[in-house]
Amino acid sequence: MRAPLPFATVRPTEDGRALVILDQTRLPEEEVERTLTDREGMAEAIRLLRVRGAPLLGVFAAHALAALATNRVATGETDPTRLRAALDEDVEVLGATRPTAVNLGWALERMRGALDEWSAANPGAAADAVAAALRTVASEIHDQDRRMCEAIGAHALQLLPATDGPVTVLTHCNAGALATGGIGTALSPLYLARAEGRRLRVFADETRPLLQGARLTAWELARAGIDVTVLTDGMAGALLSSIRVDAILVGADRIAANGDVANKIGTYGLAVLARRHGVPFYVLAPTSTLDPDCPTGADIPIEQRREDEVRSGMGRTTVPADAEVWNPAFDVTPAELVTAWVTDEGVRRSWS
Amino acid sequence: MRAPLPFATVRPTEDGRALVILDQTRLPEEEVERTLTDREGMAEAIRLLRVRGAPLLGVFAAHALAALATNRVATGETDPTRLRAALDEDVEVLGATRPTAVNLGWALERMRGALDEWSAANPGAAADAVAAALRTVASEIHDQDRRMCEAIGAHALQLLPATDGPVTVLTHCNAGALATGGIGTALSPLYLARAEGRRLRVFADETRPLLQGARLTAWELARAGIDVTVLTDGMAGALLSSIRVDAILVGADRIAANGDVANKIGTYGLAVLARRHGVPFYVLAPTSTLDPDCPTGADIPIEQRREDEVRSGMGRTTVPADAEVWNPAFDVTPAELVTAWVTDEGVRRSWS
Repeated sequence: MRAPLPFATVRPTEDGRALVILDQTRLPEEEVERTLTDREGMAEAIRLLRVRGAPLLGVFAAHALAALATNRVATGETDPTRLRAALDEDVEVLGATRPTAVNLGWALERMRGALDEWSAANPGAAADAVAAALRTVASEIHDQDRRMCEAIGAHALQLLPATDGPVTVLTHCNAGALATGGIGTALSPLYLARAEGRRLRVFADETRPLLQGARLTAWELARAGIDVTVLTDGMAGALLSSIRVDAILVGADRIAANGDVANKIGTYGLAVLARRHGVPFYVLAPTSTLDPDCPTGADIPIEQRREDEVRSGMGRTTVPADAEVWNPAFDVTPAELVTAWVTDEGVRRSWS
Repeated sequence: MRAPLPFATVRPTEDGRALVILDQTRLPEEEVERTLTDREGMAEAIRLLRVRGAPLLGVFAAHALAALATNRVATGETDPTRLRAALDEDVEVLGATRPTAVNLGWALERMRGALDEWSAANPGAAADAVAAALRTVASEIHDQDRRMCEAIGAHALQLLPATDGPVTVLTHCNAGALATGGIGTALSPLYLARAEGRRLRVFADETRPLLQGARLTAWELARAGIDVTVLTDGMAGALLSSIRVDAILVGADRIAANGDVANKIGTYGLAVLARRHGVPFYVLAPTSTLDPDCPTGADIPIEQRREDEVRSGMGRTTVPADAEVWNPAFDVTPAELVTAWVTDEGVRRSWS
């Protein structure tokens, strides 16, 4: 089953020499596509968050290496050795844009490793064959990401109630198509439900300070024709008191060995409200998010981000200079508050 | 006990002919005082939210009527009958600025009623005596508001732990000095504790969509030398998981006959978190907030506010045009989640 999306976060051009991205910094006000032809433009797109989201960064980086090699061949490069040396430079430059983005480094190394394997198996291959091999591996990485999203969605879809009325869902932050090369993680069952013609009503927390829920989740769901309503983070309690919500769907940045979940700040408060109101609380994430080396949530390091995201995140100063700011990026939801964890491998209801 | 504040939200000038207000629309970036001499400027100050907060609007309106009458006498008015007719116009113009602000209308009517009583008791009084009487009543209204704040603070102060380390408190929205003619309601025990030399650490939810916590609570506490840290509304759960918070202090817009509390949106979620973490949850409000005609919280009407507060509240559009917005101004916290209600009359621990 494929749920077609009316937008592409990243795609190579027909000739394979460039990438077209949806510039996420312009959302939700404008839908701007940018064509990236050189390495600096690609590195800048990552640095400026024109592309963002852990899975999407991996997919983007793979396509970027393939496009850069293809362009070199198209502009006259015929020496496979020089092509390989240029690729090393590309890996270095792109990898340095966001050093802590695990998927980015993983995809770059996987491209390089795959090329070395291919070259060993195809000694004396011409430069254009090398570039073609890189395009093939990038496509595989992208397809793998799409399959991961679809698998999470298919498993999670079974958890949504079979109801005549609309299925009502609350979500937080953006673990959607805009963060992946496919239909997203937390939002994937919604795209599949929509493709089946089911009626949906989605509530999206705006997710301060960076407003990924308002800017990105609301944009991609509305763009796909799904009914979406934005509320501020503090309104979730009033929502659960006011109407029946069938499920809360969130992503995860890391899942500890005991099932504790680190996710975007605000997730834990939602889980506490879900328990009080008897609403199922589902965590949807790729298997790669599971961290067996992290015994519990207490062992997950929590990134503290820049104060100005809270002080003046939307262009105007909203916090006085002599007040302090606390800005943790994530919180930890204990496993006991999670109804089920859904990965591409299936649904898990307990962790012991 | 009086806790001096380093700013005044509203005060008459020496000659009584004008009002000086702290322009709250310029906070937290600038501390701008405005001198208001005519009725239009005073009405505009209310309309543009340069003064806001239910108790403060009452105090402001009383001073405004007195200043306008005083100015008329100073510029040659000698006829008490014409002075009384002008006052009626003032009441009408100021009362029309925010028709649903109960304290505003209450103070205007109280001024008019007090003047009529005084005139009946002082037949043939000169115009300057009429103006002086109005100034006296306005001062009484202001003093009454100050006493209400101090009384709430004194009662609530007894609930804070006697600890050597700093007393750590979390609050939401602004029920502070900026909303009253005194030291505030929810924040009043903090000013009293500070005056006693106790160490405080206050966390203030920013309180989306209008950011009263970030803009106003953080400003007034920092201005008074109290250690204050702003966090986004979704961070409260992480805060309670991270450190020991001694108490959560919030105000109330209305308290039903069974103790259910309507307050700024986000309050209910805090109360649910407080229960989970064993943190006392205190509601601090004037006795006038109690509504015996409202049996339970379900009977309290909840104002839905304009979508653009969420869509573009800080100058930039953050919600796509084809997404809906839900913007309730208040939520209801059930009485069972409230540890104690503190009014100017005392501390109440149950409601049955």
